[in-house]
Amino acid sequence: MGHQQMQKLALSALGRRTKAPPVSWLMAAALAHPRLISLAAGFTDNQTLPVRETREVLSGLLRSRGGRAALQYGSTPGDPGLRRATAARLRALDGLPDGEPACSPERMLITHGSQQLLYMLAEALCDPGDIVLVEDPTYFVLLGILQSHGLAARGIRMESDGLELAHLEAVLRRLKRTGEVRRVKLLYLVSYFQNPTGTTTSFEKKAGALELLRHYERAAGHPIYLLEDAAYRELRFSGADVKSALAAQGHRERVIYMGTYSKPFATGVRVGFGLLPEPLLSTVLRIKGNHDFGTSNLLQQILARAVESGRYERHLVGLRARYRHKAQVMLDAIAKHFPAVVRWQAPRGGLYVWARLPPRVKSGLASRLFQAARANEVLYVPGELCYAADPTRRRPNHEMRLSFAAETEPNLRAGIQRLGAAMRRMLD
Amino acid sequence: MGHQQMQKLALSALGRRTKAPPVSWLMAAALAHPRLISLAAGFTDNQTLPVRETREVLSGLLRSRGGRAALQYGSTPGDPGLRRATAARLRALDGLPDGEPACSPERMLITHGSQQLLYMLAEALCDPGDIVLVEDPTYFVLLGILQSHGLAARGIRMESDGLELAHLEAVLRRLKRTGEVRRVKLLYLVSYFQNPTGTTTSFEKKAGALELLRHYERAAGHPIYLLEDAAYRELRFSGADVKSALAAQGHRERVIYMGTYSKPFATGVRVGFGLLPEPLLSTVLRIKGNHDFGTSNLLQQILARAVESGRYERHLVGLRARYRHKAQVMLDAIAKHFPAVVRWQAPRGGLYVWARLPPRVKSGLASRLFQAARANEVLYVPGELCYAADPTRRRPNHEMRLSFAAETEPNLRAGIQRLGAAMRRMLD
Repeated sequence: MGHQQMQKLALSALGRRTKAPPVSWLMAAALAHPRLISLAAGFTDNQTLPVRETREVLSGLLRSRGGRAALQYGSTPGDPGLRRATAARLRALDGLPDGEPACSPERMLITHGSQQLLYMLAEALCDPGDIVLVEDPTYFVLLGILQSHGLAARGIRMESDGLELAHLEAVLRRLKRTGEVRRVKLLYLVSYFQNPTGTTTSFEKKAGALELLRHYERAAGHPIYLLEDAAYRELRFSGADVKSALAAQGHRERVIYMGTYSKPFATGVRVGFGLLPEPLLSTVLRIKGNHDFGTSNLLQQILARAVESGRYERHLVGLRARYRHKAQVMLDAIAKHFPAVVRWQAPRGGLYVWARLPPRVKSGLASRLFQAARANEVLYVPGELCYAADPTRRRPNHEMRLSFAAETEPNLRAGIQRLGAAMRRMLD
Repeated sequence: MGHQQMQKLALSALGRRTKAPPVSWLMAAALAHPRLISLAAGFTDNQTLPVRETREVLSGLLRSRGGRAALQYGSTPGDPGLRRATAARLRALDGLPDGEPACSPERMLITHGSQQLLYMLAEALCDPGDIVLVEDPTYFVLLGILQSHGLAARGIRMESDGLELAHLEAVLRRLKRTGEVRRVKLLYLVSYFQNPTGTTTSFEKKAGALELLRHYERAAGHPIYLLEDAAYRELRFSGADVKSALAAQGHRERVIYMGTYSKPFATGVRVGFGLLPEPLLSTVLRIKGNHDFGTSNLLQQILARAVESGRYERHLVGLRARYRHKAQVMLDAIAKHFPAVVRWQAPRGGLYVWARLPPRVKSGLASRLFQAARANEVLYVPGELCYAADPTRRRPNHEMRLSFAAETEPNLRAGIQRLGAAMRRMLD
């Protein structure tokens, strides 16, 4: 046996199974090639980062009596003040009364980015072979977490206001028939300006999905949760806010709501949060106790002060205007440079435009188009990375996620132009 | 079936298995009862927290060109500058040349506290039923991680300079005889001023342990790693530094070295680090990509600047003097107030004194002594929490870990006095 083979024998099943997440590769490529125009990375706009606000908050914090506490350990669920303020903001958004238990600080935990919560929920709920229902396409980081834990996924088709409920029902019915519904633990929705498609799920769809899940719980033999990932909710630049699943009466014990301060405030300040019903909350808190027994207190205090002082809200106003403008810059460039056969929709928030080529034009990592784009020093996220390995359908491979957040305006224009040129060559 | 039972059926095996870590309970008790004197918490001394240094570093950082970068995502392995500086500090401590691959930035990853690395190593190496060799007693947080993942542990007896190598050999021999050596993936050592006993492992013991582990690899069928947790290495207040296992020639591909900046600098700034040989490094980086795809960049930049500017080293000098003094305050109080039958050793670093009662006097969570101490508003870590569930010996239950780090000097004296009074009542 070779040396390398022998080495690998010490790894666990999870260790051997876990693939490199594509996000690491894409981020490393963007960091390593400063000349590369990356329309792939989910980085936020460097120009919008709240450097002054963070400096002011930290200067105040580290001159105050709270300065020492900020440099000390906190508790596993997170800073009580930040949990209170976050729960209050959510209740206001969802029109819930102050006493609503489903949106109380007691149900909330603060995490090292919302991704940590995704990871811990997979750990808390799923055994290898279990099934997670996801939007088709969905957030590729979630797919990496599922892959690592040996979990299966089933994609639910989407329409302009979110899940196709008839397809969700058909999938659940089929899973019931095969007995596999016993392996279904949750439905994962990125409900606002979805990553990758930009779609927002209507409140009616959320309530309808909760009804359907509840209907199949008897066959499943256990609760089936709706995990609402509202990561982009605050990055809305047109239209009105949509109520979250927490506002769906009668189903609140089945809703896990998660959000983040990293994307709207600063991605270098990793602070996410979640609202969890019992017994999930206690379980995830125990797991969090083993991960790190609490998110960095300094990061939490930065956010707590930014929210309490109003700096966070003021920052959001500027951020939304900026992203509205940059989305328009990208859309104008797309209209000008992409071939007419390419389809896309103008997003109303978030960071992404989802573009669809004719199905015969492949866009995946191995495609000629992706290679041509890289040769032209422009990077996008191939749509195929956003589709679960679902045995019930072929994996689409003719789409792309384009981020307008990170690059400068001239680079957005140049990147789209280069990409359009590469597309034309493939179509010729 | 009751509602609560039905709820629990959705949980995974890990979710159902994971117990509440005692550290969460002890920390919550300390935070909730401000009048309680906690000799239990591993909090560092509030008075020593580098508030001014952090303010200066952040003010400089957030006025510089690097300010924006600090608020943006970084890469999964961590900031290159911090990895370089950390590897260079370690090479200097261990007398290794600049080009030593086992101590290079390329092998290093930065984590959200060193605990995150412990967790990811358990994930990367161990399947349920696998066996981890630990010091007897050991760091209780590691035991919680093992419990959650369904792992077994075997305790290796300790003497004044670390592991009893003859016992390590006897345990390995027995595991080989039963075939269980195939389940042994690593030996975990807290090698400097151990948590909980304060013991420092000599370099000879580390080298000897590596020899023994290597000898049993053929029977195991895979590498057996030495995981050296050097969390307290820099909190040395008397004596000379001891070389780490990285200095043991011929065995470096079996050494995982981990350390932390949180304890020596600020516990609210969760930054740990590890040096890992391949293929473990790639595997753990993939897992880290799924956990959070990189530790908060802002926290890393604070440490990078504190190290580069010399503030970190200067802070350490003051910290060591402070802990030397506080250890002495506790030891003087122990000498004055504890019954003569209690044994302890003066530590040369770290945060803890380990005290041993006569075996007939129980100190565990359910003991009369622990209840009496709580009634007197003083808290300690019962020794039983630091012992693995090892079927080959009875779990000792007559010791305690006492931390001199967090409490004020008057509280250290008062806490030891109260504890001594409770002990006397038990002995009467």
